[in-house]
Amino acid sequence: MIIDIHGHYTTAPTQLRDWRLRQIDSAGTPFNEPLVISDDEIVETIEKGQLRLQRDRGTDVTLFSPTAGGMAHHFGDEQTSVQWTRTVNDLVKRVCDLFPDNFIPVCQIPQSPGVDPANCIDELERCVNGLGFIALNLNPDPTDGYWTGPALTNKAWYPLYEKMVELEVPAMIHVSMSCNPNFHGTGAHYLNGDTVAFMQFIESELFKDFPTLKFVIPHGGGAVPYHWGRYRGIAQDMGRPPIEELLNNVYFDTCVYHQRGIDLLVDVIAADNIVFASEMIGAVRGVDERSGRYFDDTKPYIDGVPGITESDKQKIFESNALKVYPRLKTTLKVTA
Amino acid sequence: MIIDIHGHYTTAPTQLRDWRLRQIDSAGTPFNEPLVISDDEIVETIEKGQLRLQRDRGTDVTLFSPTAGGMAHHFGDEQTSVQWTRTVNDLVKRVCDLFPDNFIPVCQIPQSPGVDPANCIDELERCVNGLGFIALNLNPDPTDGYWTGPALTNKAWYPLYEKMVELEVPAMIHVSMSCNPNFHGTGAHYLNGDTVAFMQFIESELFKDFPTLKFVIPHGGGAVPYHWGRYRGIAQDMGRPPIEELLNNVYFDTCVYHQRGIDLLVDVIAADNIVFASEMIGAVRGVDERSGRYFDDTKPYIDGVPGITESDKQKIFESNALKVYPRLKTTLKVTA
Repeated sequence: MIIDIHGHYTTAPTQLRDWRLRQIDSAGTPFNEPLVISDDEIVETIEKGQLRLQRDRGTDVTLFSPTAGGMAHHFGDEQTSVQWTRTVNDLVKRVCDLFPDNFIPVCQIPQSPGVDPANCIDELERCVNGLGFIALNLNPDPTDGYWTGPALTNKAWYPLYEKMVELEVPAMIHVSMSCNPNFHGTGAHYLNGDTVAFMQFIESELFKDFPTLKFVIPHGGGAVPYHWGRYRGIAQDMGRPPIEELLNNVYFDTCVYHQRGIDLLVDVIAADNIVFASEMIGAVRGVDERSGRYFDDTKPYIDGVPGITESDKQKIFESNALKVYPRLKTTLKVTA
Repeated sequence: MIIDIHGHYTTAPTQLRDWRLRQIDSAGTPFNEPLVISDDEIVETIEKGQLRLQRDRGTDVTLFSPTAGGMAHHFGDEQTSVQWTRTVNDLVKRVCDLFPDNFIPVCQIPQSPGVDPANCIDELERCVNGLGFIALNLNPDPTDGYWTGPALTNKAWYPLYEKMVELEVPAMIHVSMSCNPNFHGTGAHYLNGDTVAFMQFIESELFKDFPTLKFVIPHGGGAVPYHWGRYRGIAQDMGRPPIEELLNNVYFDTCVYHQRGIDLLVDVIAADNIVFASEMIGAVRGVDERSGRYFDDTKPYIDGVPGITESDKQKIFESNALKVYPRLKTTLKVTA
């Protein structure tokens, strides 16, 4: 089985975007409009979009979450974020109920700049216990480009981490859109968020406090595997433990869109810590004119790693996902 | 000849740090203290530091600039930055005059948050025309971690770029310290600054406006070569030209501190666009306990790239530097 742990509902019917724009515009006044989208409309977007690509590419199941760029936690206030989050999580749940063999739900959480992350616990419990979500996306920068909130290792996050551990759900560290004109979203802010998170982990005792907490750093870990020697050296200079110790808690996905990048990822990071992902339909949507293949069709890159063993491929495509996402096994059994 | 295009005077006598602290503390009141450091003191720091490592590692010449983290443009106001910049540039000039065969001066510029970059032209002219500096370091984020200024492609920078073109001096895009607790300096802010710069270039017409403007992106280009497919795809999706066109103006250094990272850099980026650098004595100072070599001893990594040709090594170690830094040739002739 090939499990893609990183997909977003980027193809939702336009009513979602329009509803969100009206919600944002309503700031300061009550907004109680229901989101109206029919099952048929959902089915059409998925069948023409993510499900078609799953079939074309030979993958089986996608861990599916609301659009990361659309989380946009900086808009409005905490209540804006709570309402938006419940709405998109419910929509993702509908997708997964309509296609239970192909999509497993992952939630966003109602972060908001300056608001204590403990505010996210209710929605996380609702999603996991009530709706069968198996993981969450966690935005390390709810300001969406200005980074004025606490680092991921700050104790402000601890109540949320306690709940994650209790519920056995991992988080993908995933920034949202950038409203900073210096940072292109998918081309700079995304990768920087990944890099920042790993360096924060190097500096901290977070995983001593939470030995079973699990994070996935997407986009192949940002700059991290390419600069693995730099990180090893910085950690050594700082008197920190070898960075390999972080690999008890931190995993990297395979959203790296060329062969040489994936080769490096698989060579530098132990196969036990790599989880297959494409982020389709996401950051890069085109077909590479040179290869004739989608840039984000990441399976052939894994298959093409020189000398990769069947055992390592099995870990990357399937068994690591089952290890990182403990609730996945149950969900797959129910739907199988 | 082996030219290291990226070295900083990180070993300056402690009087420099103390002077700077008093200058920062004096904010709002006149500060006219001279910096007192003897030639003997400079000689000692260099002979025990960068010159010793040059000799040990078999490199010949270092392009030498003030400590990047120390630029710290966010402190005080424009005049604070002007005074500090002149002071450290003069100190770097003294190093290079004392060791003219081994160090060639590169300046910092007196950037300051919210201040028009055109304010840097006077100091750039003083350094280049008056003191023989051959390049500059340009901080894409003078706020030192909050990124509230204009992107590098904003026309606010154009007067400075016009002067760079006129003087034939390239800039290394190099952030300074981070005062944002989310961003470790050398482990996150540095690499993010590199990544941000390249993505800004993809989005812009900057090099149509300045066809001969040259930038070096340090630290192996941040996340860029590892994510080359992502950048190719994003550019294609945006209807931008192939990113290889940027390589008429953009070069990457070799400050990547492990073999596999350098292998990827040399494989993905044309040898014509890679310039040798170590950043010693800089971000990573230790000896790798596993290899017994300094992490930042980057020459063996270049020598160790599988299948690298003598011609490519010659470009990376020497001839590209002479191409990117037109004033270097004259300086080397004078000192030879």
